[in-house]
Amino acid sequence: MSSTWSNRISFSVFGESHGPAIGVCIDNMPPGESIDMDKLMQFMARRAPGRDQTATQRREKDMPQIMSGYFNGKTTGTPLCAFIANSDQHSADYLKLSKLARPGHADYTGALRYRGFSDPRGGGHFSGRLTAPLCFAGAVAGQILERRGIYVGAHIAEIHKIKDESFDPIRTTRDDIITLRGKSFPTISERRGRMMINDIKKAKEAEDSVGGVVECIAVNVPAGVGSPIFDGLENSIAQLIFGIPAVKGLEFGAGFNAAKMLGSENNDEFYVNEQGHVVTRTNFHGGILGGISSGMPITLRVAFKPTPSIARPQDTVDYSAMKNETIAIKGRHDPCVVPRAVPCVEAAVNIALLNHMLDYPNF
Amino acid sequence: MSSTWSNRISFSVFGESHGPAIGVCIDNMPPGESIDMDKLMQFMARRAPGRDQTATQRREKDMPQIMSGYFNGKTTGTPLCAFIANSDQHSADYLKLSKLARPGHADYTGALRYRGFSDPRGGGHFSGRLTAPLCFAGAVAGQILERRGIYVGAHIAEIHKIKDESFDPIRTTRDDIITLRGKSFPTISERRGRMMINDIKKAKEAEDSVGGVVECIAVNVPAGVGSPIFDGLENSIAQLIFGIPAVKGLEFGAGFNAAKMLGSENNDEFYVNEQGHVVTRTNFHGGILGGISSGMPITLRVAFKPTPSIARPQDTVDYSAMKNETIAIKGRHDPCVVPRAVPCVEAAVNIALLNHMLDYPNF
Amino acid sequence: MSSTWSNRISFSVFGESHGPAIGVCIDNMPPGESIDMDKLMQFMARRAPGRDQTATQRREKDMPQIMSGYFNGKTTGTPLCAFIANSDQHSADYLKLSKLARPGHADYTGALRYRGFSDPRGGGHFSGRLTAPLCFAGAVAGQILERRGIYVGAHIAEIHKIKDESFDPIRTTRDDIITLRGKSFPTISERRGRMMINDIKKAKEAEDSVGGVVECIAVNVPAGVGSPIFDGLENSIAQLIFGIPAVKGLEFGAGFNAAKMLGSENNDEFYVNEQGHVVTRTNFHGGILGGISSGMPITLRVAFKPTPSIARPQDTVDYSAMKNETIAIKGRHDPCVVPRAVPCVEAAVNIALLNHMLDYPNF
Amino acid sequence: MSSTWSNRISFSVFGESHGPAIGVCIDNMPPGESIDMDKLMQFMARRAPGRDQTATQRREKDMPQIMSGYFNGKTTGTPLCAFIANSDQHSADYLKLSKLARPGHADYTGALRYRGFSDPRGGGHFSGRLTAPLCFAGAVAGQILERRGIYVGAHIAEIHKIKDESFDPIRTTRDDIITLRGKSFPTISERRGRMMINDIKKAKEAEDSVGGVVECIAVNVPAGVGSPIFDGLENSIAQLIFGIPAVKGLEFGAGFNAAKMLGSENNDEFYVNEQGHVVTRTNFHGGILGGISSGMPITLRVAFKPTPSIARPQDTVDYSAMKNETIAIKGRHDPCVVPRAVPCVEAAVNIALLNHMLDYPNF
Repeated sequence: MSSTWSNRISFSVFGESHGPAIGVCIDNMPPGESIDMDKLMQFMARRAPGRDQTATQRREKDMPQIMSGYFNGKTTGTPLCAFIANSDQHSADYLKLSKLARPGHADYTGALRYRGFSDPRGGGHFSGRLTAPLCFAGAVAGQILERRGIYVGAHIAEIHKIKDESFDPIRTTRDDIITLRGKSFPTISERRGRMMINDIKKAKEAEDSVGGVVECIAVNVPAGVGSPIFDGLENSIAQLIFGIPAVKGLEFGAGFNAAKMLGSENNDEFYVNEQGHVVTRTNFHGGILGGISSGMPITLRVAFKPTPSIARPQDTVDYSAMKNETIAIKGRHDPCVVPRAVPCVEAAVNIALLNHMLDYPNF
Repeated sequence: MSSTWSNRISFSVFGESHGPAIGVCIDNMPPGESIDMDKLMQFMARRAPGRDQTATQRREKDMPQIMSGYFNGKTTGTPLCAFIANSDQHSADYLKLSKLARPGHADYTGALRYRGFSDPRGGGHFSGRLTAPLCFAGAVAGQILERRGIYVGAHIAEIHKIKDESFDPIRTTRDDIITLRGKSFPTISERRGRMMINDIKKAKEAEDSVGGVVECIAVNVPAGVGSPIFDGLENSIAQLIFGIPAVKGLEFGAGFNAAKMLGSENNDEFYVNEQGHVVTRTNFHGGILGGISSGMPITLRVAFKPTPSIARPQDTVDYSAMKNETIAIKGRHDPCVVPRAVPCVEAAVNIALLNHMLDYPNF
Repeated sequence: MSSTWSNRISFSVFGESHGPAIGVCIDNMPPGESIDMDKLMQFMARRAPGRDQTATQRREKDMPQIMSGYFNGKTTGTPLCAFIANSDQHSADYLKLSKLARPGHADYTGALRYRGFSDPRGGGHFSGRLTAPLCFAGAVAGQILERRGIYVGAHIAEIHKIKDESFDPIRTTRDDIITLRGKSFPTISERRGRMMINDIKKAKEAEDSVGGVVECIAVNVPAGVGSPIFDGLENSIAQLIFGIPAVKGLEFGAGFNAAKMLGSENNDEFYVNEQGHVVTRTNFHGGILGGISSGMPITLRVAFKPTPSIARPQDTVDYSAMKNETIAIKGRHDPCVVPRAVPCVEAAVNIALLNHMLDYPNF
Repeated sequence: MSSTWSNRISFSVFGESHGPAIGVCIDNMPPGESIDMDKLMQFMARRAPGRDQTATQRREKDMPQIMSGYFNGKTTGTPLCAFIANSDQHSADYLKLSKLARPGHADYTGALRYRGFSDPRGGGHFSGRLTAPLCFAGAVAGQILERRGIYVGAHIAEIHKIKDESFDPIRTTRDDIITLRGKSFPTISERRGRMMINDIKKAKEAEDSVGGVVECIAVNVPAGVGSPIFDGLENSIAQLIFGIPAVKGLEFGAGFNAAKMLGSENNDEFYVNEQGHVVTRTNFHGGILGGISSGMPITLRVAFKPTPSIARPQDTVDYSAMKNETIAIKGRHDPCVVPRAVPCVEAAVNIALLNHMLDYPNF
């Protein structure tokens, strides 16, 4: 299914950028879980546009309305459906573009796939706006996990060519994660963060955009969660992460660097620690072995390409007339999607983890 | 499901390294497709051990026996099931290890996940040997695709710190792919290949191992194949690729490099070419936009960690006694899995592409 | 998933009887299909309460609002989501009951399944009201099928002990189906219909209820649609039909009568008719052989139990206090669900057929 | 998928009647469950042909070989795959028929569905022989359930027009079930059983066949197992039951008789019994309300049509030449499939129950 992820939890995203509403229907959520609405709105606010000076100045009223599956302040276990009304859209801005394939967008591929019937306004169902329901679901999943001590956090690890410090893959704590969530531009190093902000501003002034990397960590995941081969934690996280627009790469633990290492460097030796737990001395495996959690923090990095919408003139085609054209994409576009992608990555990881935790004994 | 990938095609892998047999059951294959058995065995031989001087000297009789779904030299459309008998195994070598968690392996996580009941011999269901049925399925899928002009090929892009040249993401042809398949150590540059072979040998002598990267390309995929959000080509390929043991990273097109680029650099401008087709001037998007093929070659890179089995002594735990131990893994292990992983990556991509092609009009 | 049916089409029903809204999210609908809203409302009106003198006098504003997947009067191919707002509910009537298990209802089983967290008001997610989104989806599917000449119709075949005539399993036409749809109490024989209406009234006066049978037919389904074993037309129809509350039985073709027949009676002999088509002389197989359509009309019968809500006092338990109690269910309940179930059965068959037709060549 | 049932357990049946082997691959079985091979063979022997005087005299060596997922006498939790080699087949007998559509068989519909490429020998993948792997899986599932006290049993409830007594839907015990399993012709009333046997013999002598009904019961299923709407016990059982060849109808509890009842008759009143359990006084609901078990015995009845293979000449078509022909099906065919279908029905119910029990707390 195009927009349905179905494993233990089934998760259907619907809507188009300029339709009446977007939303999500989540089946098989555990019953009896409360939802802290303030916390949920804080999570979603991190994805919302207009939050910091680098982002677009559009305001979206991203207030999700829960339609089902929630009663007396708790999940019922039957499908949890939420919708977010669309508003403050300027379809006219977009309609002019509707036959020009914006480079780096899915206009052309989507039109072919759906034989010309997909809604082209603002990218339609391909819009980054569809990450709002992902964040709704991820925020709810996150609250359920946190009630069991599991915390998932992320930061901006790279923008363009500027790198933040990395998570400590052994010692990162719940508090480190909570600290990051409070930042309007979540980097570990404040100084690197400021450099990144300047770089983004510079790109914006140049009518250009920049890409980046989000690093994510999950702490306190018990060992033994996941499954081999096609249903491991990596598979599930990957399938969800590649559902976020602009993602071009994903690595776990040492990732692409592991390819440059010797076995004697990359292997994480086990030992029994003072608390009597099996742990590893290093964490190049990123907390997952054979698709199953090892008990060490789960670490991953997600590469985002630069925002494809840029004001600079670009060559393109009118795919209805099959002729060459030029396009300059005006309007309010983020010069960098990475800051707003941080909670999206967390959301995807939250959903994948909750999904597999449902099989964990006595969850 | 742990070992079942189900989308348009359903694909169930079964077996353990030292059980009676391994195999695969594939549902919803198109009917009427012939299977060239010689070609199939050539494909599988590329995965088999003992093929070149860098690999283990074990011989496995990896002759798949087709049990169903194949009649009069053609697929019937009902489930295609193949078995590969296990033989020439030395369980005794492994049994000594059975309570020691080999670092970098799934021994410990698998034992927890399956409450101590999983078959530990040779990694059991977590063994790299389970990629043989993947290759069987991928080889069949590949033959069906090639009949429609679509070719998928891969090469060893990196070993340790040595890089091969890259595929030309615009001009790579079917012939380039066929040439690579004929090589016992598939690199584009022969010289780089020899350097890699030497590096692997050096690691072996040092009782160590090395990792690497496989780059894969698919040419002549028509535009419009795939779906948005969770069922795009990237999602499907990712879910299958992370089913190959030792994979730690995956990127499409420019991948992690896209994170370092400006939008004006990374955007691939469209134009109508002399044949009247919509194409892009560059191919940083790796042939996929919004989960859907653009008609440009699909490119991806897969990072493999070094073989975790090394003869050097390593610290570890006996997880049944919860005490610290030392382990030295003797036996015939590949010092590098990457050469044998090349057809596995192709197989995963073949399956994902065939799966989505089933929805393509008039496939 | 409890409320998600996923095959070629994925179909997620959400909502509770007294929550803000109910609805449905349908993934993988074909793009470019128009929806005739008047026709859709007529379909849904047949399910709505208060339509005839036998039904409850509640009015529900069952106007579905399409939230996504529909643009310029046509389906886009991306998820089609519709909401139906709840209104005119009298929660107070129901709340008194919330700890008493209404006999024949899912109050007790649902409370156990969801550990006490399910919404008990009006049956919550178990309410018959959840058939409204089923009918929305079925009505849309039906329009797509009718555009290809396939018509699905149903009538009230039995009420209590009164039987209507049966569909002619060979000669029933599209026009017969359209005629039935125009009737407020859809029976083939008007006289039998009047007898049934009187019987329902009598039950109502006696503070009781009655059950019945719906017979359904699909004409012009081409031969070769469906799959063997677990994914046949019968399996798919069955899985959907048993999703309608109060269904207790389902039979295809001769059904339970086939069990009383000889092979020489029950076998439908094939012949080539004057138009050169392979047809059968009789149709005891109900248009399906081996899960696959034969080209003959598809016929099925669905048994509904009497409405479990009756005003007569009944023994029951308070399952929170685990003590015996008596209950008398007041309020406006249909003395018979069968008339309103007619479009629900059609809807289920429409969805199952469209689902399998997506695999039919050149659909 | 045609031959894959995937819910919590995934269950893939493969093979053709005259191919090298048939079998099944079952994913997500619980680990650590022992398999009593003698008991398993007894279960399968009940399905095997040649068991009693009414059945075909073919002998099939239906010894399943477990290929994976089973280690040290216990399930591992990874895919359990078994295959059963085919032997003693007389393809020549069948090949003559290969272009004639046997009435009541899937020859014609299967050939259309698979564009002429399906294996026609002995019905190929549509053969009743494919119920052997179903029985393997069902026997294993049954042993797991019985270890938790849950027993599933069935008997021949009707043959042609002769009825056996029915299960007591309240008081049937584990011992009643075990008694039935010991019978070569499992009826509750021995006298009725003898009448049925005579009737079957008479049909055989007349070169004809007869249909019948299997009634099944599951005792000691705890309350609260299953899910609403599309994933209830009825939906899952239905989807599996309609995977058994020749099934034309299915009813739960009072089934089609419920349609003839008043609500005041059909409603099962609840009370708290002496053991402090919530039970019902009658069991017309068949142990399932809203898709979820009530704790009462689960009862269902399955209608089977007469064996379509009969020696009498029948009209049919040669579907390759599209001309009218006559056919007389010689060879060793059961004059009634119902006795051998008894364990098949149990197997389907075992699998559906185990599947839903996996979600039951502390299973």
